[in-house]
Amino acid sequence: MPASPIRKLVPYAEAAKKKGIKVYHLNIGQPDIETPSAILDAVRKTDIKVLEYSHSAGNETYRRKLVNYYKRVGISVSYDQIIVTTGGSEAILFGFFCCFDPGDEVIIPEPFYANYNGFAVAAGVNVVPITSYIETGFSLPPIEEFEKLITSKTKAIVICNPNNPTGYLYSRDEMEALKRISLKYNLYLFSDEAYREFSYDGEYISAMHLQGLEQNVVLMDTISKRYSACGARLGAFVTKNKMVYDAAMKFAQARLSPPGLAQIMGEAAVDLPEHYFDEPKAEYMARRDLLVGRLNAMSGVFCPKPGGAFYAIARLPIDDSDKFCQWLLESFSYSDQTVMLAPATGFYGTSGLGKNEVRLAYVLNLESINAAMDCLERALQTYPHRVEKTHASSSLLS
Amino acid sequence: MPASPIRKLVPYAEAAKKKGIKVYHLNIGQPDIETPSAILDAVRKTDIKVLEYSHSAGNETYRRKLVNYYKRVGISVSYDQIIVTTGGSEAILFGFFCCFDPGDEVIIPEPFYANYNGFAVAAGVNVVPITSYIETGFSLPPIEEFEKLITSKTKAIVICNPNNPTGYLYSRDEMEALKRISLKYNLYLFSDEAYREFSYDGEYISAMHLQGLEQNVVLMDTISKRYSACGARLGAFVTKNKMVYDAAMKFAQARLSPPGLAQIMGEAAVDLPEHYFDEPKAEYMARRDLLVGRLNAMSGVFCPKPGGAFYAIARLPIDDSDKFCQWLLESFSYSDQTVMLAPATGFYGTSGLGKNEVRLAYVLNLESINAAMDCLERALQTYPHRVEKTHASSSLLS
Repeated sequence: MPASPIRKLVPYAEAAKKKGIKVYHLNIGQPDIETPSAILDAVRKTDIKVLEYSHSAGNETYRRKLVNYYKRVGISVSYDQIIVTTGGSEAILFGFFCCFDPGDEVIIPEPFYANYNGFAVAAGVNVVPITSYIETGFSLPPIEEFEKLITSKTKAIVICNPNNPTGYLYSRDEMEALKRISLKYNLYLFSDEAYREFSYDGEYISAMHLQGLEQNVVLMDTISKRYSACGARLGAFVTKNKMVYDAAMKFAQARLSPPGLAQIMGEAAVDLPEHYFDEPKAEYMARRDLLVGRLNAMSGVFCPKPGGAFYAIARLPIDDSDKFCQWLLESFSYSDQTVMLAPATGFYGTSGLGKNEVRLAYVLNLESINAAMDCLERALQTYPHRVEKTHASSSLLS
Repeated sequence: MPASPIRKLVPYAEAAKKKGIKVYHLNIGQPDIETPSAILDAVRKTDIKVLEYSHSAGNETYRRKLVNYYKRVGISVSYDQIIVTTGGSEAILFGFFCCFDPGDEVIIPEPFYANYNGFAVAAGVNVVPITSYIETGFSLPPIEEFEKLITSKTKAIVICNPNNPTGYLYSRDEMEALKRISLKYNLYLFSDEAYREFSYDGEYISAMHLQGLEQNVVLMDTISKRYSACGARLGAFVTKNKMVYDAAMKFAQARLSPPGLAQIMGEAAVDLPEHYFDEPKAEYMARRDLLVGRLNAMSGVFCPKPGGAFYAIARLPIDDSDKFCQWLLESFSYSDQTVMLAPATGFYGTSGLGKNEVRLAYVLNLESINAAMDCLERALQTYPHRVEKTHASSSLLS
C-alpha cells in the first residue's frame, strides 16, 4: 500500500507553521468556497430521534432525489441503479472490488488521482498507466496507444473527467473513442466525475451520455467538490449494469450503510436553485485565469490552461519536484509566507515522470493565489537546484 | 463476496408489511433507544462554514476526547494510537487489509458477526471457524481446540466481546487464555468491542487490558451501539503497534477522512454524564430477562442467558432456521403480526450448523418483545416442519 504522495509533506508544513510562516495550501483539493448554508441548515433543523442505519444503498428518498439531479445533467438513471457511498472514495473501492479479480489490469491515463493506486493495491489490481503529456494539455493519449497496452487481463479503463490532477476536460471525440475501444475489447469504463459542474471550456460529456455503452459504464461520483462539502463523505456508485450493481451491493451491505447526517445534506443539495453553481464556477474560472497567467509569466514555467475542475499542472525549471516542494516548506519563505504544492511524481504510475511538474489546486481566493504566486516566483529564482528549461525534459517541445 | 444473511430476508418482510402485517424486527441490531439529544444538538448548533476534510485519522480534538473516554473504561491509549473510522466496519476492513496477506488465516469463534466473512473475502483472507456451543452459553472453546487449528498461515484470532451474535461476555480467564495463545504463536488479537457498555453479568475485560499483549492487540470500536447512533457511521481503529498503525494510516489516507458531522457528535458524546449509560443498560437488561424468560418457557426452546450486548441465540424445535424465518414472514401471522428473526446459519462458518438456531436482537421495548414472543410461541405451535427436541441435534445434551 503506497503512502499518500500529498500527505507525506504534511509534517514539513506543520513545522513551517510552527516557525510562524504562513503556508498557502495549493496542494490539496480542499476548496475555501463555503458549503451552501441551506444544506447545512437541513442538518441543523433535523428532528430525528434515533440516527438509524439507512438502507445499505442509501435512503430511498435521497436516491430518488439524485435521479432528479442526474436528469438535470443529462444522465438518465433510476433510483435502483444508485448506491450512495461514503465519499467518492468508497465508490471507487466498490468498483475495483466488484469488477476485478486479483491480477486483473486497468488502464489509466497518467498523471492520475493518486488514490486510484491505493484502491488498486487493496483489490490486488495492476494499474497500467498510459502517459498523457503536458505539451498537449494532457489530452487523451491516442487510442492506438491504449490498444498496445490491452492484454487478456485488461478489464477496464479508468478516467476522471474533468480531470484531477490535470484539469483536462475530455472532448466528445475523445469520449466517443473511449466508447469504441471499451466496446471493442469489452472493457468497463470507470468514470470519476467529481468535478462535472466545473467544466469551463467546451462541453462536459459524461460516460453515461455514451449511447450503447450502458452496460460497461460505472460512474463514480461525490458531493465533496460539487457543494464544497468534502467532510460530509457522501458519494455515489452508479451503473446500469445489474450484475455489477448487485455485486457492489454485497460490499455495501457488509459495511451496513453510508453516513446518515450527510444524506440529509445531500437531499437538501438537490433542492438548491439551479443558479447555485454560477457563483462558484465564475470564481473558479477567475482563479484559474489568474493562476495560469501568473505561472506562464514566470521564466521557465509552462502551464496549459485547464478546461475544468480546479487543478492545473505546471512544468517548473527544477531538478526534482519532491525535493522542491519539501524545500518550499523547509527552507524557503518570502515575507514570512510560502506555498505548498503537490509534486506531480505522485500522480504518475511510470517511475521517473513528473519530476519537473507540480499540481496546483486553485482552491484559495484571488488574493491568496496572487500571494502564493509571488512566493513561487521568488522561490524559483532562489532555488539552488534550478534547471533551465533547455536542460529539462523538453525534448518533445523541440 | 457473500450476500448479507440478514438482509436477504428483507424482501419477505416488505411483502408482509404490504399485506398489512406488523413485523417486529428482532433480526437486526438497530436499537429503538433514542440517540442522546445532547449529541444531536451538537450537530444542530454547529456554526461551520466549510465542511472540510478532517485529518485522515480523524480530528485531533476528537481523538484527544476519545483518549479520555478510553481512560474511563480502563484503556490507556494516546491520540496517535487512534484512527477514527467510518463505523466499526471500516475499522475491521483496515485491520484485515493491513495485517494480512491474501491466503492468510484468521481463527474466529463461531457463530460470529457475519460481515467478518465479507471483509475477509475482500482481503483474500480465509476464516477458520472454531465452534462454540449453545449448551455452554457459547463460552470460548478450549484453547487446545484453537491450537489444533493453528497453521503457518494463521495470523490472528478475532473476537467480539461482548459477543454479537451470542451475547456472551468473555471471562477474565478466557481473555488470559487468549493472551497466552496469542503470545505463544505470535498472533494478532482483533477485538471488536462495540458493545462494551452493555456488560451485565461479570466483569468486562478489554483486550487492551491484557498486560504484555500490547503489540498484538487491534481494537475495533464504534459509537453505533454505545450511543444508539448506528447511522452516524463513526468508529475507531486502535492499536499500540506502530507498524500496524502506520499501515492502517495508508488505507485511511487513501479514503481521505472519516465523516465530519459524525465527529462533532462523537466529541459531544464523550461529554455525556457518566450516568448516561445507566438507563439504556437497565432497559436492555429488563428486555433480556423478559426475552430469555419467554423463550425458555416455550416448549422445546432453549436460550442461554447472555451476559452482554443485546443479542441472544435460541435453539428452536424446527427443521431449518432459514426456512422458518422466511415462513414467519411469508406464511404466518398472529393477530396481523409477525416477528422477523435472523437465522443462525448465517453466523456459522461451518456449513450445516445453526439450522435449529436463530438470533434475536432485543432492540425493541418490553411491550413489543412480549408481542413478538406471543407471535413466536404461536408460530412454533403451527409451523408445519416442527421437529421435537429429541429429534433435533441435541446429542450434546444427552
